[in-house]
Amino acid sequence: MESQLSLFYGLSFLTVAIAFAFAFYLYLWVKKQKTTNAKIQEVSALIKEGANTFMRREYLVLAKFALVAAIVILVLLPMPIWQGNIIDNISMAIAYIAGTVLSAIAGKIGIMVATHSNGRTAEAAQKGLKPAFLIGFRGGAVMGLLVVGCSLLGVAAVLWITGNSSILLGFSFGASSLALFAKAGGGIFTKTADVSADLTGKVELGIPEDDPRNPAVIADNVGDNVGDVAGMGADLFDSNVAAMASALVLAQSLAGGAYNNISMVFCYAILGLLASIIGIATARVGKNGNPTHALNSSTYVTTAIFLVLTALATVVFDGFSWRIWGASAVGLLVGVVIGITTDYFTDDTKPIVKKVAHASSSGPAFTVLSGVSYGFISALPAMVGIALSALVAYKLCEPMGAGYAIFGISMAAVGMLSIVGMIISNDAYGPIVDNARGLAEMGGLGDETIRTADELDSAGNTVKAITKGFSISAAGLTVISLLGAFMSEANDALAAAGRELITGFDIMSPTVFFGVLIGAAIPAVFSAMLILGVDKNAQRMVQEIHRQFVEIPGLKEGKEDAKPEYGKCIDIATSGAIRELIPAGLMSIIATLIVGFIGGPLAIGGFLLGNIVSGLLIALFMSNSGGLWDNAKKYVESGEEGGKGSEAHKAAVIGDTVGDPFKDTAGPSINTQITVVSLVSSLASSLFVWFSILG
Amino acid sequence: MESQLSLFYGLSFLTVAIAFAFAFYLYLWVKKQKTTNAKIQEVSALIKEGANTFMRREYLVLAKFALVAAIVILVLLPMPIWQGNIIDNISMAIAYIAGTVLSAIAGKIGIMVATHSNGRTAEAAQKGLKPAFLIGFRGGAVMGLLVVGCSLLGVAAVLWITGNSSILLGFSFGASSLALFAKAGGGIFTKTADVSADLTGKVELGIPEDDPRNPAVIADNVGDNVGDVAGMGADLFDSNVAAMASALVLAQSLAGGAYNNISMVFCYAILGLLASIIGIATARVGKNGNPTHALNSSTYVTTAIFLVLTALATVVFDGFSWRIWGASAVGLLVGVVIGITTDYFTDDTKPIVKKVAHASSSGPAFTVLSGVSYGFISALPAMVGIALSALVAYKLCEPMGAGYAIFGISMAAVGMLSIVGMIISNDAYGPIVDNARGLAEMGGLGDETIRTADELDSAGNTVKAITKGFSISAAGLTVISLLGAFMSEANDALAAAGRELITGFDIMSPTVFFGVLIGAAIPAVFSAMLILGVDKNAQRMVQEIHRQFVEIPGLKEGKEDAKPEYGKCIDIATSGAIRELIPAGLMSIIATLIVGFIGGPLAIGGFLLGNIVSGLLIALFMSNSGGLWDNAKKYVESGEEGGKGSEAHKAAVIGDTVGDPFKDTAGPSINTQITVVSLVSSLASSLFVWFSILG
Repeated sequence: MESQLSLFYGLSFLTVAIAFAFAFYLYLWVKKQKTTNAKIQEVSALIKEGANTFMRREYLVLAKFALVAAIVILVLLPMPIWQGNIIDNISMAIAYIAGTVLSAIAGKIGIMVATHSNGRTAEAAQKGLKPAFLIGFRGGAVMGLLVVGCSLLGVAAVLWITGNSSILLGFSFGASSLALFAKAGGGIFTKTADVSADLTGKVELGIPEDDPRNPAVIADNVGDNVGDVAGMGADLFDSNVAAMASALVLAQSLAGGAYNNISMVFCYAILGLLASIIGIATARVGKNGNPTHALNSSTYVTTAIFLVLTALATVVFDGFSWRIWGASAVGLLVGVVIGITTDYFTDDTKPIVKKVAHASSSGPAFTVLSGVSYGFISALPAMVGIALSALVAYKLCEPMGAGYAIFGISMAAVGMLSIVGMIISNDAYGPIVDNARGLAEMGGLGDETIRTADELDSAGNTVKAITKGFSISAAGLTVISLLGAFMSEANDALAAAGRELITGFDIMSPTVFFGVLIGAAIPAVFSAMLILGVDKNAQRMVQEIHRQFVEIPGLKEGKEDAKPEYGKCIDIATSGAIRELIPAGLMSIIATLIVGFIGGPLAIGGFLLGNIVSGLLIALFMSNSGGLWDNAKKYVESGEEGGKGSEAHKAAVIGDTVGDPFKDTAGPSINTQITVVSLVSSLASSLFVWFSILG
Repeated sequence: MESQLSLFYGLSFLTVAIAFAFAFYLYLWVKKQKTTNAKIQEVSALIKEGANTFMRREYLVLAKFALVAAIVILVLLPMPIWQGNIIDNISMAIAYIAGTVLSAIAGKIGIMVATHSNGRTAEAAQKGLKPAFLIGFRGGAVMGLLVVGCSLLGVAAVLWITGNSSILLGFSFGASSLALFAKAGGGIFTKTADVSADLTGKVELGIPEDDPRNPAVIADNVGDNVGDVAGMGADLFDSNVAAMASALVLAQSLAGGAYNNISMVFCYAILGLLASIIGIATARVGKNGNPTHALNSSTYVTTAIFLVLTALATVVFDGFSWRIWGASAVGLLVGVVIGITTDYFTDDTKPIVKKVAHASSSGPAFTVLSGVSYGFISALPAMVGIALSALVAYKLCEPMGAGYAIFGISMAAVGMLSIVGMIISNDAYGPIVDNARGLAEMGGLGDETIRTADELDSAGNTVKAITKGFSISAAGLTVISLLGAFMSEANDALAAAGRELITGFDIMSPTVFFGVLIGAAIPAVFSAMLILGVDKNAQRMVQEIHRQFVEIPGLKEGKEDAKPEYGKCIDIATSGAIRELIPAGLMSIIATLIVGFIGGPLAIGGFLLGNIVSGLLIALFMSNSGGLWDNAKKYVESGEEGGKGSEAHKAAVIGDTVGDPFKDTAGPSINTQITVVSLVSSLASSLFVWFSILG
């Protein structure tokens, strides 16, 4: 069976090469598209430069953090260097660095292509929906292919070289720690700019979104890229790596049939990537031109191809089990169903958004109250879906023998994330067409083109809600399997210490319970810290915008020669985001260490559970209520409940402003927070076994 | 040792008699106070009548619900009547009815005294802080004494008559199901009226709070009584009964030394009540007249007396353990500490409230965002406190033998709730002085008197935050011990069925995990349903107020003969509250049954854990953020950040409106929801053992 595994290593590298080649082809294709409008080129260049500035400064800070973390890992993990095997420590530290670097590269290139695509999409929109859609989508697809390619490359390389799946956790931790800060930092940046631009522009002055007079408008467009392209890419890179890593750790701990199960993990990842490539290559807007339909149907096509290909693989390859195929199919299908229910709560053609828009006519307090309420309710279907898929996967695989049940759950997560290439492509499409809409406005391309760009943008928003539900759920399943991985790591350490093994985490144990309660509070505090970061930062930026309107003569009136100082706003967003991104991330890691050193592995098991459960709840609540408010505002702007300028509109704008950091800063960062905490726990499990007070 | 227990039964009944006699004395004392102002008498009578109308209609609906529930219990619990012992079923049904009736009586009398006290407090405020404080406080104390007296009476009587602690769970369930609906119904009523009065009065017309032109103003004052007096009384009646019931169930399941432990539970309850009586009897405003200080110092005095008396009891009585004394002392002290940290987040002399007030000057979105954030952060200290007290109580009592550890946690809950008589007195003081402030305004008692009433009211608000943190934490500890009680009940059923006993609830079991995820979603959905209830109801009432302002000539201008139709608003609040209170409560109960019949006792164990953890988090978040917004508004109104009428004030009012249903409807109802779900689980444990799909 070892030869089978070698085959899959080879196939993994081959598939990665194909994905990279295809991404490169798409990049060249995008670059080949015409761009002629000088104003658009100018603004697009400003956006690119702003994004690069932010990324450079952010990566510089993260590089320092990563270096410190790598040194800590080198000295302490998996075991203190004076007690353990030094080769393990060196491998772990290198794997960690590799995880951060690969994630950073994928993010960097993704941003580059996205900022190449936005202007071209805007210009193509003059010719219609079809060509503009293709540029926006293919620009996003580069990011999708790179993220999945890099994650498969990294995971396969680390395991192929070291043969030790524990080292994978180091690689995964690298990916996670970068994602934590990239998502949080990008999220703070994007919402600082967005909120400030909306409040000063739409609310105070009554000028349209993307009006070039607004000093924050470029920062807002930069934010879409660094938050939604780079941040989201890092987030899904992290989830995908974590899902594979935990599946491989669990597979390696299985008795006997380890090789075939390891092969299976790689096989599923390969087929998922291939299915995504096919889905990406065939995505088109049909004759009647509905971009939402085009994006969703590519997702369904990719899903179907993946299920068929993995079924074929199960027939063809020795030792591949139908039960595990079933577990991963359940994971994937539940992911799609959760996406659809999320859509029900956030789509403005469905009743919930209309109700919130209607409540807005009674004032902003009702906008907030109804949005919070439906946001809470919207968490239920996803929680039930995750619960059911974990239960079914477990029960399906339980008869295969000891350890298979939890391995089944990890394969459900791998299944759910298999089409992540497609998901990222859809998601990165959003900020590109959002930018394109702004560029069409700023470039003066006319109402017809703006309408086309609006339609593309609206599809991006709708699809984003689905992909967000999908990625939160995937993170949910992944961390359940990481809980299994943690137990397996902790037991290795306990066995090494000659102590009694853990057979589970019993709620009735006060040590476990202690961990649960504190773990549950962490995502709440984490998201609060991020929101407060946006809050503080946006207040600074609003002041700067007010200053510019006062001090730059003619700016408010829109005189030709009155130019706002866009750079100042980008600077504020950048420095604020970098200052605010570290404390929330560190708080989560330090809380984990405190609980671990007090209560040992049992407390950490509880801590992870509490963290997962409340993290999922808060993430779903925040993402969905934010999406809901956004679309309620758009619904009112479309002329309902009094339309633009009405009291309902003012209330809906306030709801949207509350929702912005919910859905784009805190909500989607919680995924990463959960994953980081899970990985820190697994990595430090030996330390907790040796050095805790109660454990 | 049985004789010792008989002694404590006797002492329990004696103490209850003393408490009732003292309450009666206070009632007569309040009635004896002078009332001369005709306008105040008139309005006070309107409030009383409105409160009585609501209570009558609510109790009528609840009586029907209770009857149905009693029949279900009679047929099915603890075991289906065709399989079990019919005497048990009859006892259980009677105990259930007794629980609802005692809770209803306490609520009814509490309301009566409160509505007698409000006008008298207002008139006494003309003579100064000292006499007014005493009337307000003693009026509230009647409720405190009745609630604790009735709960001790009921618990002692049920156990004395049946000797079977399982029947106590039926009594406790009666108290809980009444509390669930009374709290939810009262909470919806009070916030419907409050929100509508504020939005139409303060925001739209710019008239002061409690202006008699506002048609919702009487409903608002009625709401304070039915929500904060009756609802809160039912809530703490429920928590107190549940804490004692679970401690007694656990004590009865202990090997050997059961009698002394049962005696100890009663002894602690008796001493807590006595300590509260002393605290109530000695409460006075000192020379320098700070009512907040007076309320808080009575709490500290009661705490100290309780700790000394229980220490003495531990010396005197045979078989009373110092370890258990320690557990209950830890519970009580942690409760006090949690109260103090809650105060930090909600007191307007502390930094957090000031920060939220400052954020308001940037607009309502920032008020909401900062309030949500600090609300989330404020949950952390309480969660850590609960976790630590449970851990310490467990570890303290673990060496005493099997089962003692979890009994220790239940005694920490009993300890925390021991001074509940004092807590309720402080809490019920709030709505009385709030009413008094309104009556002083409506009765035209002059600015000096209104200022005095304001000072009394502000003390009520500050203390309320503390008592709320206290009661949520107490519910937290109680339900942890109910989890233990559930396991003990489920094991009785498993033993009867000849099946393997449960030794714990392992997170790694997918059945438990399934329960955890769904249990965690329930408090979110429950609170969302209540908030939406307020939302819908308030929109109806706002329309009615607008109608009156349009159709009643001279009302807006405040002409002497233009009388608003107060009754219409009371009607809307009443019928709406009654319509909305049932679905949320039923949803929680049905969800419990579904999970139980799918996953059996293991899934229920997980379900309870998820429910407790997310319930605590959401309850703390909502109560504290609501209190924070309320005080931020008051802070701005005191002249900060631009004072009344500024943009910051408008934003702060919106924040307060969002916070109203958070802190007075959803937040404090979650306690009860958690308790009800825990009790339903324990009661139906046999059914889950026999009839579930997976269990």
